[in-house]
Amino acid sequence: MRLSKLFTKTLKNAPSDQESLNGKLLTRAGFIHQETSGVYSFLPLGLLVLNKIENIIREEMNAIGGQEILMSALAPTEYWEKTGRLSAMSTLFKATGANKESTLNNDKDYVLSPTHEETITPLVQKYIFSYKDLPILPYQIQFKFRNEARARGGLLRGREFRMKDLYSFHADASGFESFYQEAATAYAKVFKRLSLHDLTYYTYAAGGDYTKRHTHEFQTLMENGEDTIYICQKCQSPHGAGLAYNKEIITDSSQFKCLECGGSDFLVEKASEVGNIFPLETRFSEAFGFFFTDKDGTQKHPIMGCYGIGPSRVMGVLAEVFSDAKGLKWPKAVAPFDVHLVDLTKDGSGQAVYDELTSRHISVLWDEREAVSAGVKFTDADLIGIPTQIILSERSKEQGGVEVRTRGEEGSKIIKAEDLPTINNTFV
Amino acid sequence: MRLSKLFTKTLKNAPSDQESLNGKLLTRAGFIHQETSGVYSFLPLGLLVLNKIENIIREEMNAIGGQEILMSALAPTEYWEKTGRLSAMSTLFKATGANKESTLNNDKDYVLSPTHEETITPLVQKYIFSYKDLPILPYQIQFKFRNEARARGGLLRGREFRMKDLYSFHADASGFESFYQEAATAYAKVFKRLSLHDLTYYTYAAGGDYTKRHTHEFQTLMENGEDTIYICQKCQSPHGAGLAYNKEIITDSSQFKCLECGGSDFLVEKASEVGNIFPLETRFSEAFGFFFTDKDGTQKHPIMGCYGIGPSRVMGVLAEVFSDAKGLKWPKAVAPFDVHLVDLTKDGSGQAVYDELTSRHISVLWDEREAVSAGVKFTDADLIGIPTQIILSERSKEQGGVEVRTRGEEGSKIIKAEDLPTINNTFV
Repeated sequence: MRLSKLFTKTLKNAPSDQESLNGKLLTRAGFIHQETSGVYSFLPLGLLVLNKIENIIREEMNAIGGQEILMSALAPTEYWEKTGRLSAMSTLFKATGANKESTLNNDKDYVLSPTHEETITPLVQKYIFSYKDLPILPYQIQFKFRNEARARGGLLRGREFRMKDLYSFHADASGFESFYQEAATAYAKVFKRLSLHDLTYYTYAAGGDYTKRHTHEFQTLMENGEDTIYICQKCQSPHGAGLAYNKEIITDSSQFKCLECGGSDFLVEKASEVGNIFPLETRFSEAFGFFFTDKDGTQKHPIMGCYGIGPSRVMGVLAEVFSDAKGLKWPKAVAPFDVHLVDLTKDGSGQAVYDELTSRHISVLWDEREAVSAGVKFTDADLIGIPTQIILSERSKEQGGVEVRTRGEEGSKIIKAEDLPTINNTFV
Repeated sequence: MRLSKLFTKTLKNAPSDQESLNGKLLTRAGFIHQETSGVYSFLPLGLLVLNKIENIIREEMNAIGGQEILMSALAPTEYWEKTGRLSAMSTLFKATGANKESTLNNDKDYVLSPTHEETITPLVQKYIFSYKDLPILPYQIQFKFRNEARARGGLLRGREFRMKDLYSFHADASGFESFYQEAATAYAKVFKRLSLHDLTYYTYAAGGDYTKRHTHEFQTLMENGEDTIYICQKCQSPHGAGLAYNKEIITDSSQFKCLECGGSDFLVEKASEVGNIFPLETRFSEAFGFFFTDKDGTQKHPIMGCYGIGPSRVMGVLAEVFSDAKGLKWPKAVAPFDVHLVDLTKDGSGQAVYDELTSRHISVLWDEREAVSAGVKFTDADLIGIPTQIILSERSKEQGGVEVRTRGEEGSKIIKAEDLPTINNTFV
């Protein structure tokens, strides 16, 4: 991709309505555009990152038997009445005809889904009748809508945001428990691939409206995190860098003991939730009168779980965690391009480097802008944050090649033109 | 994919609320699920087809310089007031807090976008200032929401549906005209790849709210089509099987002459719109006060065009056009799997065939259900409509291999086990 053609451009300053670090950085670097408070569009660079995050999640959900579907955002209000959440959910949006004529067309109201238990449960109910049909693990990657009171966290708390939500349906508790652990392991793999593993704690949290049991969150250490977690100094977790407790479940911190080791040695940290898994028990299958016939011929409610990761929120967390004063520093797995080619030549010699790299299936953002200084090019490259920067200049040409450096690290290395074909083994 | 594990199942009869052929077939075959009138979810088979359609469109949009973005569905009402469409658009949905608490959170109303001129124009306006920045060709593939009066056409007319919408911004009329032709050519390529080319006519249509000029539709011949087109019997079109006129622009059919050849020999047919391209002129850049500085230093409004294809609607058209009494007949380019393996053996020998095919990167839907008769398996295979069916039975094993046939065609052929590796060159 030629940077001169890329929509859009970097901005010298973030708009004044961006208060959060991720909102400022991602807006300045041209990844996202705020339409109105808490509502963002993804620009080309941002969509590339979002797609990479979503594909990592998709692969790990498929690996544990998840089947991808795509549910509608509009949901019948009747379903939300059945579960009691039409009036109980404080952030619910509804969709209605905007003016007299569109109301005359169709005066039905819809819920603009903030989550999809009310859609998936009656859907699965139509197809699943026997224990032989269970478990079933549908998931989707879709927009969600929530009328949040405060939506100033950039991508961390949006009124419209991306969500991967998997729902599991089981014939018995042991089937549910074993899948719940499998899902937690898959989540740990996702966060490992996103380079977040060492910062992310498997965290006991409150069940809220869903369940009286604990739920589990994946909490990433972050200076501007909305949550506070108590990290057990003794316990390990197979699902993260360690085991923690969300402050919300701790009534008296001086008395609180780790539920696993009984210890009381905690490190208290700010963190941001990047995923969660919930035991739903039979909360929703009961509400919809959803029964299956078990082995012994009795009618039972399927036991459900739900498993969420917000890809847009994860993008916000990555921007907060992997950045410095100069800008973003994307992990390789989600960088919008493999290489940022800073082309300082005027004789068109960048084309050969670009062609050589792309012929090796290395994706390249090529800064071939003519009327732009070297300083601006370096500043933009650091702001956009692609991990591998390749600089082609008169100086590097004199040395017979290009200069390669890693965003955020000191030093660089000259690679001879004839060694370019091996660059993807060495750097990218 | 093992059919026994696939979510969902085929249905013997379509639900009574499905009136359209595509709605009946796609529901019975387990591709889609209606949540409420005109609102569908895509089940695993349906999402595979939708993704293939969207990827074909995406590749052709990228090939003409389109840059993919993803705009929010929620839009500020102020933008829709500016263009006058907040009150003028008869199918507009708005999103509001659903209950008192969510209104207290945030009492803002939003438009739930039925199209994105009101979002893309002010967005582009923030980044484009000079003729040097033009043309710019952002596009997205996203859900749209329209409060349609009548939503009984299956995927043909939904209240929530998928749309690819590209918007072009140009410095001058000649730049716009030449891109408009380029876009039409790209659309013809899309419909060729979808096997719709021979049925699809480049059709003059009314400008409606957007422009006083003609717009152009791509209309596919279809018995249950909502539109009537007049096909000129003399004219060719580089953008389709021929040239046509939407009945809506013909006031007196006895007097009407072809705008290109002046002839009056027309074939009148029912058709369904699968794409459209619109000259927007400066309708939206004027409404938002969007100016750029031209070469001569003067301030001008960019000339805009918009270019839509509805992937979910296209899926409905494909289901109507490529089907028979037995079910669906997908073109290879969009079939959910390459091969439907009808496994009638009981000794587990299907696994070797499945492994051999998938190791050749052939995607396989493997009907390995145990308690299901051969008759039901054949009926389901014909209903689901994957073009290549491979039958493994005791009889085919005696003949040393598998039986291969094409959905909807007479005859079959025995392929020896040792020739399976070449099957993707021969059949798939």
